[in-house]
Amino acid sequence: MSLHAHPVGLADRFRSVRDLSAALVSRLSDADASVQSMADASPAKWHLAHTTWFFETFVLRDHVPGYVLHDARFPFLFNSYYEAEGQRHARDRRGMITRPHLDEVLGYRAAVDAAVLDALDALPDVARDLVALGCHHEEQHQELLLTDILHLFAQNPIAPAIWEGARKVPVQMPGPMGWIECGAQVTEIGHDGDGFAFDCEAPRHATLLSAHAIADRTVTNGEWAAFIADGGYADPRHWLADGWAWVKADAIDAPLYWERAEDGGWTRFGLDGRRAIDPAAPVTHVSFFEADAYASWAGARLPTEAEWEAAAAGYDPAVGNLLDAAGPVEPRPSADGPAFFGDVWEWTGSAYRPYPGFRAAEGAVGEYNGKFMSGQFVLRGGSCASPRGHVRASYRNFFYPHQRWQFTGVRLAKDL
Amino acid sequence: MSLHAHPVGLADRFRSVRDLSAALVSRLSDADASVQSMADASPAKWHLAHTTWFFETFVLRDHVPGYVLHDARFPFLFNSYYEAEGQRHARDRRGMITRPHLDEVLGYRAAVDAAVLDALDALPDVARDLVALGCHHEEQHQELLLTDILHLFAQNPIAPAIWEGARKVPVQMPGPMGWIECGAQVTEIGHDGDGFAFDCEAPRHATLLSAHAIADRTVTNGEWAAFIADGGYADPRHWLADGWAWVKADAIDAPLYWERAEDGGWTRFGLDGRRAIDPAAPVTHVSFFEADAYASWAGARLPTEAEWEAAAAGYDPAVGNLLDAAGPVEPRPSADGPAFFGDVWEWTGSAYRPYPGFRAAEGAVGEYNGKFMSGQFVLRGGSCASPRGHVRASYRNFFYPHQRWQFTGVRLAKDL
Amino acid sequence: MSLHAHPVGLADRFRSVRDLSAALVSRLSDADASVQSMADASPAKWHLAHTTWFFETFVLRDHVPGYVLHDARFPFLFNSYYEAEGQRHARDRRGMITRPHLDEVLGYRAAVDAAVLDALDALPDVARDLVALGCHHEEQHQELLLTDILHLFAQNPIAPAIWEGARKVPVQMPGPMGWIECGAQVTEIGHDGDGFAFDCEAPRHATLLSAHAIADRTVTNGEWAAFIADGGYADPRHWLADGWAWVKADAIDAPLYWERAEDGGWTRFGLDGRRAIDPAAPVTHVSFFEADAYASWAGARLPTEAEWEAAAAGYDPAVGNLLDAAGPVEPRPSADGPAFFGDVWEWTGSAYRPYPGFRAAEGAVGEYNGKFMSGQFVLRGGSCASPRGHVRASYRNFFYPHQRWQFTGVRLAKDL
Amino acid sequence: MSLHAHPVGLADRFRSVRDLSAALVSRLSDADASVQSMADASPAKWHLAHTTWFFETFVLRDHVPGYVLHDARFPFLFNSYYEAEGQRHARDRRGMITRPHLDEVLGYRAAVDAAVLDALDALPDVARDLVALGCHHEEQHQELLLTDILHLFAQNPIAPAIWEGARKVPVQMPGPMGWIECGAQVTEIGHDGDGFAFDCEAPRHATLLSAHAIADRTVTNGEWAAFIADGGYADPRHWLADGWAWVKADAIDAPLYWERAEDGGWTRFGLDGRRAIDPAAPVTHVSFFEADAYASWAGARLPTEAEWEAAAAGYDPAVGNLLDAAGPVEPRPSADGPAFFGDVWEWTGSAYRPYPGFRAAEGAVGEYNGKFMSGQFVLRGGSCASPRGHVRASYRNFFYPHQRWQFTGVRLAKDL
Repeated sequence: MSLHAHPVGLADRFRSVRDLSAALVSRLSDADASVQSMADASPAKWHLAHTTWFFETFVLRDHVPGYVLHDARFPFLFNSYYEAEGQRHARDRRGMITRPHLDEVLGYRAAVDAAVLDALDALPDVARDLVALGCHHEEQHQELLLTDILHLFAQNPIAPAIWEGARKVPVQMPGPMGWIECGAQVTEIGHDGDGFAFDCEAPRHATLLSAHAIADRTVTNGEWAAFIADGGYADPRHWLADGWAWVKADAIDAPLYWERAEDGGWTRFGLDGRRAIDPAAPVTHVSFFEADAYASWAGARLPTEAEWEAAAAGYDPAVGNLLDAAGPVEPRPSADGPAFFGDVWEWTGSAYRPYPGFRAAEGAVGEYNGKFMSGQFVLRGGSCASPRGHVRASYRNFFYPHQRWQFTGVRLAKDL
Repeated sequence: MSLHAHPVGLADRFRSVRDLSAALVSRLSDADASVQSMADASPAKWHLAHTTWFFETFVLRDHVPGYVLHDARFPFLFNSYYEAEGQRHARDRRGMITRPHLDEVLGYRAAVDAAVLDALDALPDVARDLVALGCHHEEQHQELLLTDILHLFAQNPIAPAIWEGARKVPVQMPGPMGWIECGAQVTEIGHDGDGFAFDCEAPRHATLLSAHAIADRTVTNGEWAAFIADGGYADPRHWLADGWAWVKADAIDAPLYWERAEDGGWTRFGLDGRRAIDPAAPVTHVSFFEADAYASWAGARLPTEAEWEAAAAGYDPAVGNLLDAAGPVEPRPSADGPAFFGDVWEWTGSAYRPYPGFRAAEGAVGEYNGKFMSGQFVLRGGSCASPRGHVRASYRNFFYPHQRWQFTGVRLAKDL
Repeated sequence: MSLHAHPVGLADRFRSVRDLSAALVSRLSDADASVQSMADASPAKWHLAHTTWFFETFVLRDHVPGYVLHDARFPFLFNSYYEAEGQRHARDRRGMITRPHLDEVLGYRAAVDAAVLDALDALPDVARDLVALGCHHEEQHQELLLTDILHLFAQNPIAPAIWEGARKVPVQMPGPMGWIECGAQVTEIGHDGDGFAFDCEAPRHATLLSAHAIADRTVTNGEWAAFIADGGYADPRHWLADGWAWVKADAIDAPLYWERAEDGGWTRFGLDGRRAIDPAAPVTHVSFFEADAYASWAGARLPTEAEWEAAAAGYDPAVGNLLDAAGPVEPRPSADGPAFFGDVWEWTGSAYRPYPGFRAAEGAVGEYNGKFMSGQFVLRGGSCASPRGHVRASYRNFFYPHQRWQFTGVRLAKDL
Repeated sequence: MSLHAHPVGLADRFRSVRDLSAALVSRLSDADASVQSMADASPAKWHLAHTTWFFETFVLRDHVPGYVLHDARFPFLFNSYYEAEGQRHARDRRGMITRPHLDEVLGYRAAVDAAVLDALDALPDVARDLVALGCHHEEQHQELLLTDILHLFAQNPIAPAIWEGARKVPVQMPGPMGWIECGAQVTEIGHDGDGFAFDCEAPRHATLLSAHAIADRTVTNGEWAAFIADGGYADPRHWLADGWAWVKADAIDAPLYWERAEDGGWTRFGLDGRRAIDPAAPVTHVSFFEADAYASWAGARLPTEAEWEAAAAGYDPAVGNLLDAAGPVEPRPSADGPAFFGDVWEWTGSAYRPYPGFRAAEGAVGEYNGKFMSGQFVLRGGSCASPRGHVRASYRNFFYPHQRWQFTGVRLAKDL
C-alpha cells in the first residue's frame, strides 16, 4: 500500500472504524454471528475477531515491546490466509467455532482496542501505517460481514429481517441510459500516492484508451426484468462458455435472492427481509457472467477498468449511496446525474492482474493482494455496503466470475 | 410399536423426559445449539424443536380439537423425514436456521409441554400411546443430541469441554475375556408385547441359533491400542472390501476422536475435553468396519443380533452405565461380571432387515423404522448416552457401517 | 470353495469355457473391447485378460515348475482385487489400457491355454481344483462381459446392436402369478459338498423358515409398466429411504435402458439394439430398491434367500433360459410351469452375509467372496447371461442395492 | 477471422492438411483412437471426425446444393460446442463412441474430402473462406490429437511409445538467458489483415508498452530441475493463491509426465515413451501456475502478450521446431540465437480477453473464439506439435491456468 501522513486523527479514525463493526452486529444473536453459510462466506464473529487479530499481530505483537497475546489460541483460529503467519484453521470450517462466544470476541476487541489506543502515540511510523492499513482492512470486512450475514439469512426458510426496511422515497424511473464519450488517448490510471491505497492500485501508469462511450448510470432492476422476460437466461448466444455451463449446472434464471412473487413479479431478499424489487433501483447480486451476458444482449460490452477509472476520476468518491451506519443497506434509485460511486460494485471486463511495475509489499502484509491475481475480474466504484470514504477512483475490488453474493451490478460501455 | 397400558404416570414420564432434554442443553450457548457439524448430525436446537414438533403434530394437531399451531412455519423447519407430513427443510441445511433463537425454541417447548399436559387426561388411548411413543422418540434424540454436540466440539481447534470430567475411580484392568457358550437351538427373539417397543422389534418369532460362544464383556481401549500397534489398520486381510476402501479414502488409523499424545500414547476427545484414554474402559467411536476388522484380527467374529439377544435376555436392561442426568457421559471400566447394557452400543454382524411378519404402523409414524432397512447394521445394548430405561433386550439400533460418532463398541463371538 | 472329483473331462471343460469367452467377443472391435463405460464395469478385453491371469497366476506360476510369465507387466494390469497379489492398476482406470491390443490379449489367452492343457495331467489335485475354480470364475466374467458391453453400447447415441435379435416366438401372456406355499419349518440350505461351489455357499446348515408363499414366476415387463403408470416411482411410501434418495438424485423413473417410444409405449436397449419391450417377458435391469418398492406396491415382499433356495431346490438348475452360446441373450416369456433358474437374477431380501461357520479359503483365493459381505444383497437363480451349468440352488450372487446393469429381476413372496 | 485471397492452391492446401491428420493416426489402433483419457481431451477418432464434420456442415451442407449428409447421426456425435448447430453428445462422454469404427471415420473423411474437392472450384468466396478456416481449424486439432494421445498413453502403466525417439543430436547447454530490452512506447499488435487469422487476433490496435526486457530463450529442463531442488513446489510465497491450492490438492511436485528415476534424476514421458529429461531442452507440460511461480522464484515475471508480440514480430514464424510430419515431436535444445516460434507454447501474463473493437463473426463460426474469453490465459508462439505455417506473431492460444497437457513452457520478462 501507499501510505503517507496521518497528521491528525488516527486514533479517532481507529475508534470510528472499530465502533461501526460493533454496530453492524448489534442485532445479531450469538448463533447468527457464528454460522458459516458457504465456504466463500465467513461468520460475523470471525470477521470481528480476524480484523482484531490483524491489529494484534501486525501492530501490537510486532511493534509493542512486551505485548502478551490476549489468547494464544486465537492466531490459529483467526488468521485468514497469511501463509507467513503459519498454520491456521481451514477456511471452510470457520463455522465450527462456536467457542469463543460472541461476547468473548467482543471482549477480545475491547482489549486490543485499548492496547492499540494506549500504544498509538508512541508507535513508529511503520506501525502507524499498519494501523491505518488495518482500518482499511476492517472496512473491507465490514462489507463482507454485511453480505455474509445477508447470505446466511437468505438460507433460512423463514427469511428473517435484520433491520426494518428504509423508508422508500418515491422516485421517478430513471430516463434512458446516457453515454459519456471518450476519444482514443493515453491517460494515467492507478493511485497517485496521495493518501492511502492498497498495493494493487499502484503504480500509477500510462494506459492507452481506445475510443469508447461509457454509460452514465448502472442497469436497473426493471431493465434486468426485461432481459429475463426476453429469454436472456435461456439463450446461449449471449453467454461466455463458462457462464453458460454455470447457468445450466446451477439452474440460474435470475439474480441471487430474486424469487417470483405470486403475481408473476419479482421479489428480492435483503437485510430488511423479502420485498418486491424496485424497478428503478440498480440491479445487484449478479455475477460477471450475468453482467457480460446482459451487455451482449444489450448490444454493448462491459467497460475496462481503465475506461471506468478515467470516467470516474472527476467525481467525488465520498458522495453516493455508501455505508454510514448499521442499517438495511441496499442500492437505491437516483434521479441525479452521472454517479460512479456507491450503490453497486460494477463489473469491468478486465481480469485482475498486476499493473506494470507492481511489487508486493514486504512481509506478511505483502500477501494482501498480489496472490489473488488469477481468475478474478475487477470491480469498481464501491457499493451501498462500502463504508463511506473507503473507496476511490483507483480502487480495485475483485471476485470470481460466478460470485454474486456481494452488491454487484452492471454499467455498460461500447466502442466508438 | 407395541403399546399397552400406561397405568400411572404418563404425565410424570412426559415431564421427566422433557426436563432431561432441557438439562442436556443447559451449558450450551445459542451458537453451540445452532451449528451443524456434518450432514449426519443435527444442531441441538433442532433436536429440541423436532421432538416438540412430534408431540405437537401427532398428539395436539391430530387429537386436540381446536389446537392452533404455535408457529405455522415450524413444521417445515422441524419435520425430520416424514414424507407423509409434506415438504421440509433439507437435512444438511439444518445448521442455517439461526432463527428462531434457542430461547424461542425453549419457549416452543414450554408451550407444547403445557398443552400436552393440559390435554393428557382427556386424550383417547391412541393419542396417549403417541405421547408414550414421543417420549421414547425424544430419548433417542437425547442420545443424538449428546453425540452431535460432541462431534461439533471436536471440530473446534480449542477443544471445548462441556462438563468437567467425572471423578475417575481407579479400577483394575479387566481380566481376559470370558466366553458364554450356547448350543444349537431354536429360540425366540423380538419383543413379546409387554411394555413399549418400536415396530421393528416385532413380531417376536422363533429363530435358529447355531452353536457359538459370546464374550462376557466388550473390547477395551487397551486391547484396541494393541490392534493398532500390531498394524491392524494397515493390513487389508482383516478388512471388508468396503471397509478397506473407507480406511484408505479417509486415512483412518484409530477410533474417532483419538489422537496421539506427545508421549506416544493415545488421547480421546469427550464431553469433558481431551484426555488420555483409559485402557480399562470399553473402546468406543469405532465403525462396523473397524469392529469387523478387529474381530477378524482377534480370530473371532461379531455376534448376530439373535445371539446377542438370547445372551442378554436374562440381564436387567436398567442396570449399567446409562444416562441418568446431564453430564460427561463416557464408557467406563467395570470389574463386575457379564453386562450387556450401557457403556457402548455393540455392533452385531446382522444387517438391519425386517423380522418375519413385520408390518409398519399405519400413518406417518409408520415411517418410523421400516424405511431404513437397507445398508445398515444392527447395534444392541444401549450406551452411556442412552437414557436409563430406554433400552431393552429386543431393542434394535442401526447405523451405516462407516458411521462412528455414536458411542459404538465391540463384543466378540465365535463359532463352536 | 468346496471341490471334489473331476472324474473326467477337466480338459474338455477348460476348453469349452475358454472357447465361449472368445466367441462372446467375436463381434467386438478393438475399441469395443477396450473402453470402460463406468467404474462398475470393465472392458471386455480386461475380462479376457483377467480370467487368463487367474489361471496363469494360481495354476501355472504356483504349480508348474519353471513356468515363465507370458508378460511380466500383465499381473499389474490384470489383477482385479487380490490384495495378496500385490499392487495393481486402479479399477476405474481399466479403460485406459489400449495396449496390449485385443489381438495381443487373445494371444495371451492362447499361450496360457496351451500351457494349462499341457500341464493339466501332471497337476496335483490342488492345482486341478484351481483349474476348476478358474472355469467357474471365468463363467462369472462371461456374464459380466455381456452386461458390461451392453452398458457400453447403451452409452452410444447411435445404439449399436451387437447381434440381430432372436426370432420372437409368439407367446401368450402369462396368467396371474401363482403362489407356492410353505409352512414354518427347519430346513437346510447351503451347498452339500457334492460338486463345485463357491466358499460363500458353505457350510450347509439348518435354517428356520416362517410360514410364507413364494410366487411361481417373476414379475413381467407388462406388470412393471402398470407400476409405472400407477405412479410407483413418484410415491415415497413404497420406497426404502436410501432408495428414495437414489430415485430423486438420479431421476430414476423406469428400469435401466427403458425409454419412452413416440407412441407412449416403452422400448428397451439390448444386445440386439433398441426395441419395444415384450410385456410377457420378465422385467430386468431393476435395482434392489426398485424391486423392493414394486413388492411394497404389490402388497408383497421379496423372498429371503433361504425361502428361495428351499423352493428352488427341487428344480433342475440346468433347465431354463441360460447362456449356451454367443448371441442376443435376453429374458423371455415362458408358458411353462414354475421356473427358478435363468432369465433374471432374482433379488432377495437377504443381505449378503456369511453363513454360520463360514470360513474363507486359505491364500489369495480366500479373497474370493468373504470380503464383499457388507452392503450388498443376495440374488438367486442365474440369468439369461449365466452360462448353463454355472448356477445351482445354493448359488449366491450379490450386488449393491442401486446396481442394475446385470439382468436382475423380481420374484415376490408374502407371509402366511 | 480475417480472410483474403486464396490465389492458388486451396485444393493443395486442403489435401495436405487432411493427409497430415491421417498420417498422425497411422500407428494408432482402433482402441487407441477411441478412448478418452480425461474430460479435457478427446479421442483421436473424434478429432478426425469433428474436423470432417466442420467441412461437411459449414461448406457442403451450407453451400453445395443437394448435398446429402454422409450419415445423419454424425452431427450429433461430432459437433463440438456450436450451440447454434443444436444438441450434441456430451463432451466428457466422447470416449463412449466405439462405433463408428476408426475405419468408418476414415471412410467419412474420404467421402467428405472427395465432395469438397469436387465442389471447390465452384464454391462462392464465402465458402472458400470457410474451407480455409477449416484447414486452420484442423491444424489446431492436429496439435490436440497429438497431446491427447500422449495423455492417454501416459495413463497406461506399460507406457507405450507411438514412435521411436528422434535421433538425439548432442547440443551444448544453452548459455545464460539473454535479455531483449524495450523502452516505453506505443506500438501496434493484432493481425494486420494480410493472410489468415482467427477472429480473436483482430482488430490490430495500438497498445502501450512499459519499459521492460524479455528473455531471448525459454526456460530449460535443467533450470526447472534447479527450481524443484530449491523447494520451489513447497514454498507458498512463489505461488498465486489458486495455484497453491492446486499444488496442494493435486500433490503437484514436477511438470506433468515427469517421474523420478532410480538414480534420483528425472524422466519424462513422450510420444517416444519414457526417457531421461534433456537438461538443455525447453521445459514443457507446465501450467500457468507453475510458470508464474517459477518466474517469481527467478525474480522475474511472465511477459504480457503485447510484449511478446512486439518482440516476436521480426522473426519468421515458419522457422523453428514445428510439426512437419507424423513423428515423436518434442521440444529440443537449440544453440541458435533468439527464437520465438515452435518448441513450446509460452504462457503470458495476459488473461484471454477481447481486443478493443473485437467482434465475433456472424453465424455458428462466430462461436469460434469469443465465448472462451474468461478464466484463461494467452499463450504465444506455437509448439513442436503446431503444424508449420499455422502460427504467426499475432496468434493467441489460450488455456486455463491449471492445464498442462499441451506443450506449454515459460519465457521470462522483467520491468526496466
